[in-house]
Amino acid sequence: MGKCKIVIIGGSAAGAKAAAKARRLDQAAEITIIQKDPDLSMASCGFPYYVGGTFDNRNSLLATPTGVVRDPLFFEKTKEINALVETECLSIDREVKKVVCRSLKNGEKHGVDYDKLILCTGASPRRLPIPGMDLRGVTTLLSMSDTDFLHTVSTSGEVKNAVVVGGGLIGVEVCEALVNRGIKVTLVEMVDQVLTMLDVQLAKLVENHMKARGVVVHSGTRLSEFTGEDGRIKGVRLAGGESLSCDLAVLATGVQPAVKLAEDCGLNIGELGGVEVNEFMQTSDESIYAAGDCVECFDLISGKNVLAPMGDLANLQGRVAGENAVLGNSVTFPGITRTGICKVFDFGAGVTGLTEKQARVIGMTDVETVVNASPDKPGFMGAGLLISKLLIEKSSQKILGYQCVGNGDVSRQVATAAMAVKGGLTVTDISTADLPYAPPFSLAIDHFIASSHLMQNKLKGRMKSITAEELYNRVESGKCPFLIDGRGPDEYEVLRLGIGERYIPLGMLRSKLSELPVDKDAEIVCFCKISLRGYETALILEANGWTNVKVLEGGIMAWPYKREK
Amino acid sequence: MGKCKIVIIGGSAAGAKAAAKARRLDQAAEITIIQKDPDLSMASCGFPYYVGGTFDNRNSLLATPTGVVRDPLFFEKTKEINALVETECLSIDREVKKVVCRSLKNGEKHGVDYDKLILCTGASPRRLPIPGMDLRGVTTLLSMSDTDFLHTVSTSGEVKNAVVVGGGLIGVEVCEALVNRGIKVTLVEMVDQVLTMLDVQLAKLVENHMKARGVVVHSGTRLSEFTGEDGRIKGVRLAGGESLSCDLAVLATGVQPAVKLAEDCGLNIGELGGVEVNEFMQTSDESIYAAGDCVECFDLISGKNVLAPMGDLANLQGRVAGENAVLGNSVTFPGITRTGICKVFDFGAGVTGLTEKQARVIGMTDVETVVNASPDKPGFMGAGLLISKLLIEKSSQKILGYQCVGNGDVSRQVATAAMAVKGGLTVTDISTADLPYAPPFSLAIDHFIASSHLMQNKLKGRMKSITAEELYNRVESGKCPFLIDGRGPDEYEVLRLGIGERYIPLGMLRSKLSELPVDKDAEIVCFCKISLRGYETALILEANGWTNVKVLEGGIMAWPYKREK
Repeated sequence: MGKCKIVIIGGSAAGAKAAAKARRLDQAAEITIIQKDPDLSMASCGFPYYVGGTFDNRNSLLATPTGVVRDPLFFEKTKEINALVETECLSIDREVKKVVCRSLKNGEKHGVDYDKLILCTGASPRRLPIPGMDLRGVTTLLSMSDTDFLHTVSTSGEVKNAVVVGGGLIGVEVCEALVNRGIKVTLVEMVDQVLTMLDVQLAKLVENHMKARGVVVHSGTRLSEFTGEDGRIKGVRLAGGESLSCDLAVLATGVQPAVKLAEDCGLNIGELGGVEVNEFMQTSDESIYAAGDCVECFDLISGKNVLAPMGDLANLQGRVAGENAVLGNSVTFPGITRTGICKVFDFGAGVTGLTEKQARVIGMTDVETVVNASPDKPGFMGAGLLISKLLIEKSSQKILGYQCVGNGDVSRQVATAAMAVKGGLTVTDISTADLPYAPPFSLAIDHFIASSHLMQNKLKGRMKSITAEELYNRVESGKCPFLIDGRGPDEYEVLRLGIGERYIPLGMLRSKLSELPVDKDAEIVCFCKISLRGYETALILEANGWTNVKVLEGGIMAWPYKREK
Repeated sequence: MGKCKIVIIGGSAAGAKAAAKARRLDQAAEITIIQKDPDLSMASCGFPYYVGGTFDNRNSLLATPTGVVRDPLFFEKTKEINALVETECLSIDREVKKVVCRSLKNGEKHGVDYDKLILCTGASPRRLPIPGMDLRGVTTLLSMSDTDFLHTVSTSGEVKNAVVVGGGLIGVEVCEALVNRGIKVTLVEMVDQVLTMLDVQLAKLVENHMKARGVVVHSGTRLSEFTGEDGRIKGVRLAGGESLSCDLAVLATGVQPAVKLAEDCGLNIGELGGVEVNEFMQTSDESIYAAGDCVECFDLISGKNVLAPMGDLANLQGRVAGENAVLGNSVTFPGITRTGICKVFDFGAGVTGLTEKQARVIGMTDVETVVNASPDKPGFMGAGLLISKLLIEKSSQKILGYQCVGNGDVSRQVATAAMAVKGGLTVTDISTADLPYAPPFSLAIDHFIASSHLMQNKLKGRMKSITAEELYNRVESGKCPFLIDGRGPDEYEVLRLGIGERYIPLGMLRSKLSELPVDKDAEIVCFCKISLRGYETALILEANGWTNVKVLEGGIMAWPYKREK
């Protein structure tokens, strides 16, 4: 048998990783990457930070940690990998195991034989079926050329107003990048929240933060048209008729798996439109593997396939595909837990496992949630705020999902929770977890552990609670319960809901019980800044005979609606 | 039956938490805290940061997040807890369930009856059996009065030179605090490394960082005497005879459980000198619970008891003791995983689970380790460095322990690993873990995941490696292997080991094989900055017939010994 021929279509995250892994496992193999773009192994997730000016050296997006650009020469010299860039793959002939390519430089076609093929064709932007998509100044942020364009126009001073379409991960990152360049940004999001990876309450807190940083947010709004003059964008029109003028529009309306090659050669495509792979990252053709944004992923928590175009997954999948292509099926990629995170100005926003909404959509009813708000570390260390939502399976008490937002250390929270979800840990396990504590890093009782304590209180019936959304709807409908804010006067002078609450500081509560409803069955909702004193207030009322006392989960800090102060 | 009488001895972390939890579960109980110190619920772990000037408001150490000092009035008003401060507990009469106390203010003795007693007596400093301990200017940092003293002298300008005795968590934190106040600090540590919670290689990297920040470190050195003049400290004498002059000496030589009360009343004391408790935090007397620094903890990984005087554990244990004291044994504290972290100037240093040394000491041989060095996130985002050591059980591939140091996000690393250890996750589980990735927070392949990949390469025999310690000993003994640094010229001009290595950049290796040993069985060690290119170098050599090729684990970044540059 001669040298194994491994061909990889796509040389960004998954493809470059698969190629490198294959080389490490077989020094003799002939490894070829076919890449349409001129660049290889781009740090795509870094594009918004280059646009926004976090760093100035474009090469950083294409270079190794020591600054060597990963161009075809680099791949040749250090990895003996033949990287054919600016080369489009036209078709795959599975019978004779050959890929047909065309050079974008000279138009020449040629064939490349393979023993094993790895498809890393990525994803393409979802285009909107509306007029004006081709105006100059309408762009996505998915390629190096998009990045170069956005970098140029956002630093040129020409752009004063930009519209970002789509409030997903890339959309919110682009908002921040453009604001950092001094551009006035309007975000238009079709659904009623940004970051649909989060449940609406936490997403609204992120949205509030974006607004506080100057972004105008239109959620629940469709775009009907890009309007222009002389082929250049001048504005957008919303479905409601409103017009916004702008010099730039960035489409961040999501991506769909790029599966044309796979489809054309007859590989199985999943229901969600991604290439179907087994746990070995192998397609329906045993000589063809696939990895990265073009595949469907198995969600370990829901047991269902999902699309998860994430750079980290692409790398991990590429590694598995590369190994199996060389050695035969020997390692697996069992699935994902839908973990994601992004920076939104001073906030982090992250999630792992299922959201409540996702759980409800797939019909899960054996679930419970709790919202928690607290500092991430002691105030004297310069604490940031964390607001999180924990989702568990009620019968088993297993952690199903965890979302966290705020200007505190969200990354550690979500990483911790991701391991808990992966490990199938329960609320009880977390309640006594031994996490790294010192004042520069966390509270003595870490926020995630405290969330499990709140959940225990709820499960044991010690804390009856109400969510911000439930209370808001109650207030809006005119059926407001008796509300008690348990904080002190100095506190509510600077921060308050102002939805009809009484101010009864916890320390004075026992002497002010006469001010409470005579009807011991009246609904009473207690809260404070984060609802710890709210919880203690509720316990005292219950001990004094009130029967329908609830705690507002997460208190004022988790309240995503308008406040008086 | 009347109101339940719960008495808690000690009102710092565990005691205050137990009292608060008991109150939440029983609004009618009579709850009394007996506390010798005048202060309650102190944030002891924050003491070094107040001394070092991270914040100036002393009350922050004693206050709730909203700034209310947790004094007896606070406990009375908000929690209906009777806190007897400046009250010493003299004895416990288990027959009649009574505690005898004495007021430190007026000397009066009185008895307090209990139904349930919770011992949270904490720990006392280990005193050194050497002359001069009572000189003025010799202190510990364990109480508010220690803190006040150190704050005063370190801001007064009187202290120019300080000696810190003991390089554990508190010792290194004190070093930083005093350096931040402009004081010249010498650390004297009895054993041959700082931070014995870490294996020596990582501890040495921390020590190097401390030295780089101006701390003079004498490790492997005993103190023989504090020397003074007119009752004030003037210096210390080391066992080797050397004298150091100083105006201040801080003893951070560890603590021992304060168990006199428990011992005197006949409760079981463990082999390590701590109060023996079961998983309900119950002592050998079923009416008496204990929590915090005074108890022995069960280590879930080794299956042995250990002492773990940590603030987070005290809180979690206090919570369990408080609940069980009120409700009967209903919740458990199953044990700990020996997680710890500290800040040392710009470094974090953390650990969870066992170190290799701890594993060896208890006779574990079915273990494997690997050292990994990498940035914590992409360089263009302003990466910090992480150097870690992963310990696994070889047969099951379970994660037994993980240590991490560096100026990167150590906290997230250790928190992630702590969950993996708690969940009994394996190397395979970690190798495809779905952790939160975005450039501001991590690499596409998170450092912890990459550590599992390195371990896989090692377990599968793909990477034969050598530790820095092994290589150093080889070099020192004159049996230096053939060494290849696979980096580029610009890199080794600024950073190099200088222990006899040849510089053969990876990209030129295939054309320079003739420069390598003719003897294909010669031992060759390959490395680079972090040993990724070192690994690729080794693979190429093996493919070209060399049979004894090793990779230096963690490369130059994990090398704790002297470098040429």
